[in-house]
Amino acid sequence: MAQLRIALAQTNPAVGDLAANADKLVEWTRLAAERGAHLVVFTEMFLTGYPAEDLVLRSSFVEASVAAVEDVARRLAEEGLGDVPVVVGYVDRADLAPRVGQPKGAPLDAAALLHRGRVVTRTAKHHLPNYGVFDEYRYFVRGDRLPVFRLHGVDVAIAVCEDLWQEGGPVAVVAEVGAGLLVVPNASPYERDKDDVRFSLVRRRAKEAGCALAYVNQVGGQDELVFDGDSVVVSASGELVARAARFSEELLVTDLELPEARFGGLGTFQVDAGDGTVITVERLELSSSPVEPYEPEPPTIAPYLDDTAEVYAALVLSVRDYVAKNGFESVILGLSGGIDSALTATIASDAIGPERVHAVLMPSRYSSDHSLGDAQELVARQGINARVVPIADIVSAFEKEIELSGLAAENLQARVRGMILMGLSNQEGHLVLTTGNKSELATGYSTLYGDSAGGFAPIKDVLKTLVWELSRWRNAQAGTSGDFLHGFTVPPIPENSIEKEPSAELRPDQRDTDSLPQYDILDRLLDDYVEKDMGSAELVAAGHDPDLVARVIRLVDLAEYKRRQYPPGPKITPKNFGRDRRLPITNRWRETAR
Amino acid sequence: MAQLRIALAQTNPAVGDLAANADKLVEWTRLAAERGAHLVVFTEMFLTGYPAEDLVLRSSFVEASVAAVEDVARRLAEEGLGDVPVVVGYVDRADLAPRVGQPKGAPLDAAALLHRGRVVTRTAKHHLPNYGVFDEYRYFVRGDRLPVFRLHGVDVAIAVCEDLWQEGGPVAVVAEVGAGLLVVPNASPYERDKDDVRFSLVRRRAKEAGCALAYVNQVGGQDELVFDGDSVVVSASGELVARAARFSEELLVTDLELPEARFGGLGTFQVDAGDGTVITVERLELSSSPVEPYEPEPPTIAPYLDDTAEVYAALVLSVRDYVAKNGFESVILGLSGGIDSALTATIASDAIGPERVHAVLMPSRYSSDHSLGDAQELVARQGINARVVPIADIVSAFEKEIELSGLAAENLQARVRGMILMGLSNQEGHLVLTTGNKSELATGYSTLYGDSAGGFAPIKDVLKTLVWELSRWRNAQAGTSGDFLHGFTVPPIPENSIEKEPSAELRPDQRDTDSLPQYDILDRLLDDYVEKDMGSAELVAAGHDPDLVARVIRLVDLAEYKRRQYPPGPKITPKNFGRDRRLPITNRWRETAR
Repeated sequence: MAQLRIALAQTNPAVGDLAANADKLVEWTRLAAERGAHLVVFTEMFLTGYPAEDLVLRSSFVEASVAAVEDVARRLAEEGLGDVPVVVGYVDRADLAPRVGQPKGAPLDAAALLHRGRVVTRTAKHHLPNYGVFDEYRYFVRGDRLPVFRLHGVDVAIAVCEDLWQEGGPVAVVAEVGAGLLVVPNASPYERDKDDVRFSLVRRRAKEAGCALAYVNQVGGQDELVFDGDSVVVSASGELVARAARFSEELLVTDLELPEARFGGLGTFQVDAGDGTVITVERLELSSSPVEPYEPEPPTIAPYLDDTAEVYAALVLSVRDYVAKNGFESVILGLSGGIDSALTATIASDAIGPERVHAVLMPSRYSSDHSLGDAQELVARQGINARVVPIADIVSAFEKEIELSGLAAENLQARVRGMILMGLSNQEGHLVLTTGNKSELATGYSTLYGDSAGGFAPIKDVLKTLVWELSRWRNAQAGTSGDFLHGFTVPPIPENSIEKEPSAELRPDQRDTDSLPQYDILDRLLDDYVEKDMGSAELVAAGHDPDLVARVIRLVDLAEYKRRQYPPGPKITPKNFGRDRRLPITNRWRETAR
Repeated sequence: MAQLRIALAQTNPAVGDLAANADKLVEWTRLAAERGAHLVVFTEMFLTGYPAEDLVLRSSFVEASVAAVEDVARRLAEEGLGDVPVVVGYVDRADLAPRVGQPKGAPLDAAALLHRGRVVTRTAKHHLPNYGVFDEYRYFVRGDRLPVFRLHGVDVAIAVCEDLWQEGGPVAVVAEVGAGLLVVPNASPYERDKDDVRFSLVRRRAKEAGCALAYVNQVGGQDELVFDGDSVVVSASGELVARAARFSEELLVTDLELPEARFGGLGTFQVDAGDGTVITVERLELSSSPVEPYEPEPPTIAPYLDDTAEVYAALVLSVRDYVAKNGFESVILGLSGGIDSALTATIASDAIGPERVHAVLMPSRYSSDHSLGDAQELVARQGINARVVPIADIVSAFEKEIELSGLAAENLQARVRGMILMGLSNQEGHLVLTTGNKSELATGYSTLYGDSAGGFAPIKDVLKTLVWELSRWRNAQAGTSGDFLHGFTVPPIPENSIEKEPSAELRPDQRDTDSLPQYDILDRLLDDYVEKDMGSAELVAAGHDPDLVARVIRLVDLAEYKRRQYPPGPKITPKNFGRDRRLPITNRWRETAR
């Protein structure tokens, strides 16, 4: 057996900022070297950030990425770090003639091995995901290599992200050619319960490949995606060896005892990959002798995060990163006294600190007494900035010029509020947070350019029943502080905001249940229709009330345009009404018509 | 040689409305039969409409499509039309076990041959486009068949749309196995100059396949896409035989003299497709003897449409279909006296008639005298509905509650106008047309939730210089009427709106050139940066002023969020800022920083 100390750099890159990402690579490699690591592995497309979308179809961007990986290899050597091999993801291009159906410039979702000032070898993702939020046939051509490099007597193979998820390809070839360790850079976005799926997968692939597996995942918010980290190392038998924290950057350093490489020549040869393709295996050697035996450090195993804590952390991280990465210093939101805006404000306080959160209380002629009171109570408990802007006179000014009634008059009030927030945002530079939840977004229970106005929608993917659950959970954390919890000593959300009956307060005595079913019934139906894509017959067979099925399907289908105009927000489910669910606006398909 | 009369059904289906599309299939087949056609060919995915996007991932939808194709085959026979073979596109599914990376339910972009009450054979698109606006690896698995059916002694092969565009696959196999005619159902969206590319391609593929080729394309607006028809028939040597009109439904009936089928057995066999795959050829026979010789009808060749007329027709058709297919009866828009809203109003009048167009004139304290006058002049010339809603008092009501200055105050005025339009839309049921042009959209020279509010944006993909060109062109058509021209006897656009210097009129003496370069310079630069994806070095090398390059790139890159919130509008260029250009919002890549 041979020892290796590997460092997994679970990092939060900035999409497009190649210089900053390269600086971070050098900095983290130095930290890893200081801790005696023999190998450092960064995430998928770390140098460019992931996903870079249509940037990879710009030749200037790909050229910059290729130059950046070569530059950083040189720079590591210049700064005395050239002896530590580094595996890092970036964007390269394949040497293919242009043809119809192939992405322009033939980009590759590549990984490089850097050593002693040089890019020693390059590989690229073989399986391209093109489902859910992924569109990788648009962006990349597939890689067809498997590098296996000998490091201190251990054979180390490199594969990229999706190559773990699909059958055949480079991971299947590892089993055939043999390796002591498989390292896998990833950018695998968060979804509830995905950690369990991912961990089972990693264990299974380690056993199939017959070697230890080091899985390093990106962390951080990038538009609608939240990357949760959760990097792991497992043994060849699939046992957990080490695990990094969720939702936080971490350099996970782990000592492994690995089988020494069998005798085998260097150079390239071809292997059938079991998926109709042929993989070129490249064997190369950085160093042949095992390191001197040393005392291993105890491995790090980050504590388990329960489901509610995990969702809350995802929301907080996504807000924090959206604000920072887009250059904002502060946020502004309308505080109604209701639970949606209360939870959104609390997430914002936890993300960037209450001193950078600005609330606007905008009572109307229909606001109840408790509304202003509950909003003011939240302001007092959290210490956020607040002002009151009554909307009645502005609404009257509109009504003097145009005659509006019914829903049009209700929408007007919501739009006046949206305009006040946008005006203050433009004037003072805050990012507007939109406070709508997923139950509203699904059914179209919101006003276009009204409560749906803004730059980021933190609870866009949170059903109303989960809004309440998260609020109660957050209040129960009062007195503790941490990466995702500002140290409020009292429960930050007024109990009355949680307990009272939901109302939009756009007409006298309005209740959400005037327009919608009870939320527990609605949310179960939405989950089956939206997430599980059940048809109307299936929904009825699953026990939902037939009339309600017809009514809710109609509401959901007709709200498609509104949802398209909604700001982005963190994805925590398979279908967050973002890039993961794409329906025509002009759509005459009606489940209920059959 | 053997004669065949073929009918190409260049139709405008409704996405999702299987029943209406099936009715249309029967109706058009009857028309074709009445004209003595021996074969009718409908467009790609005609029964479901194209593109159906994530609908194809719903099993209830795919089941409905499969049932619909079988139903309609029976219905044709019941209605006495069973003897005319019909080729029609629909969605089917492949019999494949689920696996990661394969679209759920394994949908196929299929085509069926219907005859005597039965679906005689089925095939599916082999090459899946996944570039530009296409995401077909998300939706479909690839087909691997080539049906060749003998009809009155002629072998007729079927391939689908993209199979013409890419090398290898079914079309390559046609050359090898031999056929007298290749029929190709398509849904190929319009772009400027694409007709020439498409025609060259069809000619080339006919020559390669060694047989006549009948190309039938969808027509009509579907969200951002406009399908232009332009169906053609070419001979085996690539000569034009017949061509349908652009942008209109048409049953193109053409008599062909085709080689009689060589002797050859029926059944299936496999052929290497030249693209790394194997295609199963299925030979079947509907009828073996040539028809009795008859006098052919002279072929139809639709007249050529010049580039400006073509763009204008695309815009008019897209507005007409968006309004009708979404169930609106009328449109509303703000009329400023400027050229963008003037052209948008004119397109709307041409699309649905001036009596269904509602204009709102919303003068502010900064509106110049000529603004209201020019708007009123347009109203008088076109006879559209109009009202005046001054915004000064509403703006003052806002300013009493919150203090706004500079850009924030300018945005406020634009937003008050947007709210008035949305309020009237909600109250009276009109669709709001957004009047912004592509030069504004590219540079972010617009107000989020202000002038960008609305449901459809007819000139979203039209650069300012083209706005002027289209306006002059439209005025020159005064006195003529047609499918895309309401019969205005005077030029519908006031000359002053075309000639005067552009201004947003949001502050005293404002000019577009305070913020933007001259439009002729700007538009050339936008074309190179946005459409051609040139990097900053390339732009400078192409002769653009370096300072302007830096400034405009910055404007374009920072406007990404605004563009995402913009309504859909007809695509007439490779990059209309819709699904054809996908960039992260959180994006720190700066061409100019290099």
